Amino acid sequence: MSKRQLLLLSSSNYHGHEFLQFARDWITDFLKKNNVSKILFIPYASTEPDSYTKYTEKVAKPLKEFGFDVEGIHESRDPVEAINNASAIFIGGGNTFHLLKTLYDKRIVEAIRSRVLDNGIPYIGSSAGTNVATVSINTTNDMPIVLPPTFYALQLLDFNINPHYLDPITDDKHRGETRAQRINEFHHINSSPVLGLREGSALLVDGDNATLIGHTKAILFCRNEDPQEFEPDSDLSFLVSSS
Amino acid sequence: MSKRQLLLLSSSNYHGHEFLQFARDWITDFLKKNNVSKILFIPYASTEPDSYTKYTEKVAKPLKEFGFDVEGIHESRDPVEAINNASAIFIGGGNTFHLLKTLYDKRIVEAIRSRVLDNGIPYIGSSAGTNVATVSINTTNDMPIVLPPTFYALQLLDFNINPHYLDPITDDKHRGETRAQRINEFHHINSSPVLGLREGSALLVDGDNATLIGHTKAILFCRNEDPQEFEPDSDLSFLVSSS
Repeated sequence: MSKRQLLLLSSSNYHGHEFLQFARDWITDFLKKNNVSKILFIPYASTEPDSYTKYTEKVAKPLKEFGFDVEGIHESRDPVEAINNASAIFIGGGNTFHLLKTLYDKRIVEAIRSRVLDNGIPYIGSSAGTNVATVSINTTNDMPIVLPPTFYALQLLDFNINPHYLDPITDDKHRGETRAQRINEFHHINSSPVLGLREGSALLVDGDNATLIGHTKAILFCRNEDPQEFEPDSDLSFLVSSS
Repeated sequence: MSKRQLLLLSSSNYHGHEFLQFARDWITDFLKKNNVSKILFIPYASTEPDSYTKYTEKVAKPLKEFGFDVEGIHESRDPVEAINNASAIFIGGGNTFHLLKTLYDKRIVEAIRSRVLDNGIPYIGSSAGTNVATVSINTTNDMPIVLPPTFYALQLLDFNINPHYLDPITDDKHRGETRAQRINEFHHINSSPVLGLREGSALLVDGDNATLIGHTKAILFCRNEDPQEFEPDSDLSFLVSSS
């Protein structure tokens, strides 16, 4: 039985809500259940130079309001030590390639894995932070602005997620690939299932149990199978147990 | 004065037209001007197993109708020899990561560069085939389903292109990054200009001269500058000469 405790948000923003506010109850319940009051925030998905403090403050504001303290990993001299001392980790959204490359550059991939999988400290991911929690970033929507040493990621789960999943727009005149076509291309090469998380939804993982939470359905793509829709509150443990 | 002859299409499909038909006159004029009757097609952007013949046939059909013969590179035992014997090269669209990885796997990057830049054989690219003609694939829209050894590409030009450029949709409720935001992230890291080619347009390059052709405007993003729109038939040689 895995110790992992994960809250993986499709996005930090949801139409009609202020930053992170739509996820207020989920974050609060998740951290309280795990007796956490302080969160280590990892802002490496931000691509703006010298933006880590600004990004951490942006995240700290709603979390403070929810009752939690936030520290940015960039404030520590030793990022590995910061991970080893963290009681919870939150990796925010931005550019997934920049995030993964920086996790490897700072040599904290193994430390995060160990803290989450062996020590069971809670992990919150949003968008890019959700992508890197899975097997690989092969199903990100982001632009490949930098080259990470590998696309393999934290592997806290061993299937893939596509955050910000987007349904095809009716009568669209654009001829670029739809999201479903892109995931289909992924399945020409890879066999890992891909969970498409629409904005406003999240995957809550407690050990070997997983539940879809939120305001929208999720869509699961398995190789050589028709995609399958799941209602909010669906039990998705089969994805985790098979992993 | 460079010998390069490039026709770089944003896409092979354009709303309201059959495959490649919107580009009929451009392709015909471009190849006739260069006295070419036979084209070597590179189908490596296709991710479907065993699909290279099918993809080559799909491209050969309209090109035959325009008056040109098409051979797929996969029909040759030696891809480098096929490039060295080619009188024109066409690289089609699909997945840019799969395309670039395969160009490196088959060890034909240098051969293509040499044939186009030193020998002046005409190069047609569409979508992914346009992406790989530039400095790098850092500004592709595709999903990173495989990891190429580098994001550097054929470097027939030394700026970047974003094909299938898409304007933000008014009143969109989706909170994922817009195309312009993604290109802005690219410019946090890289200084290369990015030409956003909307569907239905192309860049025609003759030595050190470049012209925007087609049905739509193009948008140019330069680091720390406001994006600039260009009308069809605009002279974009400044991009090429400065390269």
